[in-house]
Amino acid sequence: MAKDKKLVEAITSMEEDFAQWYTDVVKKAELIDYTSVKGCMVIKPAGYAIWENIQRELDRRFKETGVENVYLPMFIPESLLQKEKDHVEGFAPEVAWVTHGGLTPLQERMCVRPTSETLFCDFYKNDIQSYRDLPKVYNQWCSVVRWEKETRPFLRSREFLWQEGHTAHATEEEAEARTQQMLNLYADFCEEFLAMPVVRGRKTDKEKFAGAVATYTIEALMHDGKALQSGTSHNFGDGFARAFGIQFTDKDNKLQYVHQTSWGMTTRLIGAIIMVHGDDSGLVLPPRVAPVQAMVIPVQQHKEGVLAKAAEVRDALAAAGLRVKLDDTDKSPGWKFSEQEMRGIPIRVELGPKDIENNRCVIVRRDTREKLEVALEDAAAKAAELMDVIQKDMFERARAHRDSHITDVKTYDEFRDAVEHKPGFIRAMWCGDEACEIKIKEDTTATSRCMPFVQEEISDTCVCCGRAAHKLVYWGKAY
Amino acid sequence: MAKDKKLVEAITSMEEDFAQWYTDVVKKAELIDYTSVKGCMVIKPAGYAIWENIQRELDRRFKETGVENVYLPMFIPESLLQKEKDHVEGFAPEVAWVTHGGLTPLQERMCVRPTSETLFCDFYKNDIQSYRDLPKVYNQWCSVVRWEKETRPFLRSREFLWQEGHTAHATEEEAEARTQQMLNLYADFCEEFLAMPVVRGRKTDKEKFAGAVATYTIEALMHDGKALQSGTSHNFGDGFARAFGIQFTDKDNKLQYVHQTSWGMTTRLIGAIIMVHGDDSGLVLPPRVAPVQAMVIPVQQHKEGVLAKAAEVRDALAAAGLRVKLDDTDKSPGWKFSEQEMRGIPIRVELGPKDIENNRCVIVRRDTREKLEVALEDAAAKAAELMDVIQKDMFERARAHRDSHITDVKTYDEFRDAVEHKPGFIRAMWCGDEACEIKIKEDTTATSRCMPFVQEEISDTCVCCGRAAHKLVYWGKAY
Repeated sequence: MAKDKKLVEAITSMEEDFAQWYTDVVKKAELIDYTSVKGCMVIKPAGYAIWENIQRELDRRFKETGVENVYLPMFIPESLLQKEKDHVEGFAPEVAWVTHGGLTPLQERMCVRPTSETLFCDFYKNDIQSYRDLPKVYNQWCSVVRWEKETRPFLRSREFLWQEGHTAHATEEEAEARTQQMLNLYADFCEEFLAMPVVRGRKTDKEKFAGAVATYTIEALMHDGKALQSGTSHNFGDGFARAFGIQFTDKDNKLQYVHQTSWGMTTRLIGAIIMVHGDDSGLVLPPRVAPVQAMVIPVQQHKEGVLAKAAEVRDALAAAGLRVKLDDTDKSPGWKFSEQEMRGIPIRVELGPKDIENNRCVIVRRDTREKLEVALEDAAAKAAELMDVIQKDMFERARAHRDSHITDVKTYDEFRDAVEHKPGFIRAMWCGDEACEIKIKEDTTATSRCMPFVQEEISDTCVCCGRAAHKLVYWGKAY
Repeated sequence: MAKDKKLVEAITSMEEDFAQWYTDVVKKAELIDYTSVKGCMVIKPAGYAIWENIQRELDRRFKETGVENVYLPMFIPESLLQKEKDHVEGFAPEVAWVTHGGLTPLQERMCVRPTSETLFCDFYKNDIQSYRDLPKVYNQWCSVVRWEKETRPFLRSREFLWQEGHTAHATEEEAEARTQQMLNLYADFCEEFLAMPVVRGRKTDKEKFAGAVATYTIEALMHDGKALQSGTSHNFGDGFARAFGIQFTDKDNKLQYVHQTSWGMTTRLIGAIIMVHGDDSGLVLPPRVAPVQAMVIPVQQHKEGVLAKAAEVRDALAAAGLRVKLDDTDKSPGWKFSEQEMRGIPIRVELGPKDIENNRCVIVRRDTREKLEVALEDAAAKAAELMDVIQKDMFERARAHRDSHITDVKTYDEFRDAVEHKPGFIRAMWCGDEACEIKIKEDTTATSRCMPFVQEEISDTCVCCGRAAHKLVYWGKAY
């Protein structure tokens, strides 16, 4: 039992130190490892398998809307990066520069892509000639590099994996519709697949993407009450098209600029899953995204017939469509339980000689720790049913947590008090003046997260300056 | 018809100029586009979809053998690259160097990975402690960079996509077995999925991978008689383990070095598909790897009922499991035929008012251009059957072409004559002395492709020096 306890004791409790708890979980659940390259990590099999599930599901949803995948180079020549003024200002300070190819200095240095708007524009400039070539709805899965000073696994690393969609359209309306379509796709994905409720809204001008006309965002609330921007979708209008000269001949044979969008989601989502659903025993994975959904753990497996029966149960669950494994290693059952909990596997099936005698097994839910005695012949059906139940319950619990951590405030005193004493989202009216946004950030460290699509008037004056205000904003401390 | 002819005329014929034919196909089949970054390309939707199919199938085969996917950083600190002597000599001259992060010079420059042995070693050094941690059978899908001087789409580009497997084992035997297992997996994949026959063999010491004890390779023959190395698998012995200090405690509590392997396949395979199967009308895709397997092309589609019936046929083929599309654009049927041929779609289904009247359609095979009149209710079953037939026929044709381009030679005169006049593989005995290998390359530009697993003694003297020889070698000009 000493070994079993050690595994559990090694995690700091969430209440004690949330940041340390997070770091402990990513390491102990074997999601990542650190490397010799500061700010870059190894994504280990347990972590990468989560990303593969995210990819597969997102990619499927993308393709249903007509998205096609492509691959563009990882390098951006400096002159290309500089073509759109706001964009270069936003990214140049944090890119990695390549200056030599082999032993030879490059004539022009190149950065490793921090994002690929400029490359897609350079490509579209040649690829788009006529209205018949539109729309272009392309996406790529790749890694990008941003030379951040402070890094944390999944949440902020110098290299991270993501997808970036880049589209070009004939009209402003079509670009706007695609921007919102992808934002809603992201939101639905988070809620349905990751069991993670999000607020859908628009970023203020101050917080929008470098070069965008409008940025839409989904914001999730972590267990510690901080917000996490979980996906963004940008409408560029024709700004990039004008900077890069991306024109097409319309049906009336007139030259027009295209309207563009881009949208992305990253491995940061894995950080979100951890911080929304995790507990003091480790990771808790929603069944849909869990690489392993059920672990069969035999008790007294050296006794005759136990392993064989455990394998039968595993096969029955697999036949019912579950991703299931059997832990027949020589570790103690208690150790195996701890590992299954640490890794966030949604259920375990315990099975010993007595259970077999009584033709039953015990299913333990990871999320609630509830134990269910189930007849062996019902195990597979029950496990399959639990996948849906757990997925739904996890979403409802996360939503209840989120909703109980929203504070509506009308005055600046209330705002300051909420930032200090009530972790979570703060909802307050805003006049629209960037000066108020800056003041709030300086005074409280809270930032505007988004102007939600669903607007309400909880007061008629700006929480900061007291002038007339008609915009409801979600504020919060953020990752 | 002018438009239709233009599309076809735009391709150079293979006989006239094979290199230009290749370039025409990759462009006209819309597989790639060139970019502002010299030596790097855009992989367009039609090209990337081929890669996705390759990935899906290879990944499935990998996982059946216990492979787990991971992701390691794209950067390698210079000191890490230098740890294994042969390896750094092999790669340092052709890497891209990152020297600045944002505005700040890096303390130590890093290269963009040309391959990740050093990173995996650095990772395994910490991740492997005990025999219980072995084997590690990890793989990653990513892009790598090699600063080549001369580049060609898919065949040799400065950045390319690939998978790289990296494994660590307790024993020499296990490492050797994994090396050969993966080589055979690659060979089977090429033959079964890409309809591309390969020769399986071992590289000479001169041609082996930088740092490897043994490199195994599969060599395919292109239509022009040149060889293409299509996949390699390396056994490193404990060389990297000693350089990096990767040790584990064995069952007797003794410290041992691990034995390692690596193996990779790249987007170069797309170049191989083009050059093995293509013809003067463009790409010819084997059905299993084809993103679109059948194109339904209506004739006189403005006539009542034609489009509706064409959609019915499309749906029937889709229901039979085919990846099928309907081309209902306003182009002429002839233009659509040319496009379908250029893109290598394995079959097209032609369907006009007269066909409908007679309750039939015409299926045209891309590979043989054979036309089949088929009753409408049999179209789906026939199309599904054709997928298997075409796949098999394409493999057999490629094998016949390969086999008819193998020349056995016993003397150096015969060798020189064969290099000059008989495009294809040359089989000849070799004494094992690197001097002969170098002389042959200098005299003829042919290189040793591999020592095939299936050995024969076609003579008992070295084709170059005349001394006793017991190694049969495949030689050839190569991409």
